[in-house]
Amino acid sequence: MPRVSQDHLDARRRQILDGARACFARHGYEGATVRRLEEATGLSRGAIFHHFRDKESLFLALAEDEAHRMAEVVARHGLVQVMRDLLSTQDGQPRDEDPADWLGTRLEVSRRLRTDPEFRARWAERSEELTTATKQRLLRQREAGKLRDDVDVDVLTSFLELVLEGLVSHLAMGLPAAGLEPVLDMVEDSVRRHRQGAELAAEHQ
Amino acid sequence: MPRVSQDHLDARRRQILDGARACFARHGYEGATVRRLEEATGLSRGAIFHHFRDKESLFLALAEDEAHRMAEVVARHGLVQVMRDLLSTQDGQPRDEDPADWLGTRLEVSRRLRTDPEFRARWAERSEELTTATKQRLLRQREAGKLRDDVDVDVLTSFLELVLEGLVSHLAMGLPAAGLEPVLDMVEDSVRRHRQGAELAAEHQ
Repeated sequence: MPRVSQDHLDARRRQILDGARACFARHGYEGATVRRLEEATGLSRGAIFHHFRDKESLFLALAEDEAHRMAEVVARHGLVQVMRDLLSTQDGQPRDEDPADWLGTRLEVSRRLRTDPEFRARWAERSEELTTATKQRLLRQREAGKLRDDVDVDVLTSFLELVLEGLVSHLAMGLPAAGLEPVLDMVEDSVRRHRQGAELAAEHQ
Repeated sequence: MPRVSQDHLDARRRQILDGARACFARHGYEGATVRRLEEATGLSRGAIFHHFRDKESLFLALAEDEAHRMAEVVARHGLVQVMRDLLSTQDGQPRDEDPADWLGTRLEVSRRLRTDPEFRARWAERSEELTTATKQRLLRQREAGKLRDDVDVDVLTSFLELVLEGLVSHLAMGLPAAGLEPVLDMVEDSVRRHRQGAELAAEHQ
């Protein structure tokens, strides 16, 4: 396949994903009809379903896309940064890409995980990427001596994921984002290495 | 009103709440029809709506009832104990009262908060009780010298509430409860006072 054609396909795929993201965020999964997906993407159903087999596949591609972006942020800045980004979209501060829709997709994933066992199974492998990215970042931090070493990395990973889920839920319930910055500072601090009393005492001797 | 009559009213009210709790947990708010509420409580619709104006009022009484129980646990043992209780209901371990239904009500509250702005307003005052109980418990712990004193109590309260919400969401998504005990240990430890290096150093001099 010639290069220009692949570029074209990628751009078209991106156009569909961006429109669909806004559409799902606004109307929810069930409410995002084919008609609305056509409007949101500016493409015909023929074009949309040339790239994605059906609505379910389109949504999973979107969720996977978001999980991948989150994993990239995690690899560079950690899972707490993902949470800070979530907060900043709530404050109306600018973000690089798709400000409000990001949360929308995440919420729709949470909701469908609750209500749709089949989706749960298909999602499990995709969400693994975020867990893996979080764990690998923590392992690098531990090697660099920046992570507390009295708690297993698996436990720290679960802790951070639990707080992320709580934050998504908090924002989904329309509760205020204000005042959560110091909570995230505390969360970040909870996984960091602190010099122990014994070490300091040794230095003071 | 004679004493025996009040006892009877209280018992009847309790009977309705217990049946309704199981019914909402099983069918969700919309799915809990009047017919199903009759079956679950063993009472006629006339008897049910003699005690509660309508289904909405019954659900709010139930949610309030649950928030009150949670606040009692918080006052005695802290919010982390509420989370441990949530985990133990998932493991099939026995609890004092209403094992699985407790989470059901909590989930239904979360879901309705997401989707129903009117319910959100009515719920706000009720949920205040849990926040207040959590904060007061933390203040007592601080006075007793058991709480870390480098972070504001409001921040610690928000932190614990965020983790609780994450846990509810986690369990709602059907994710495993196994492995979360050490995470809750870590959460509990995060709000506790630890002797500072400087203090220990002073002792060693």
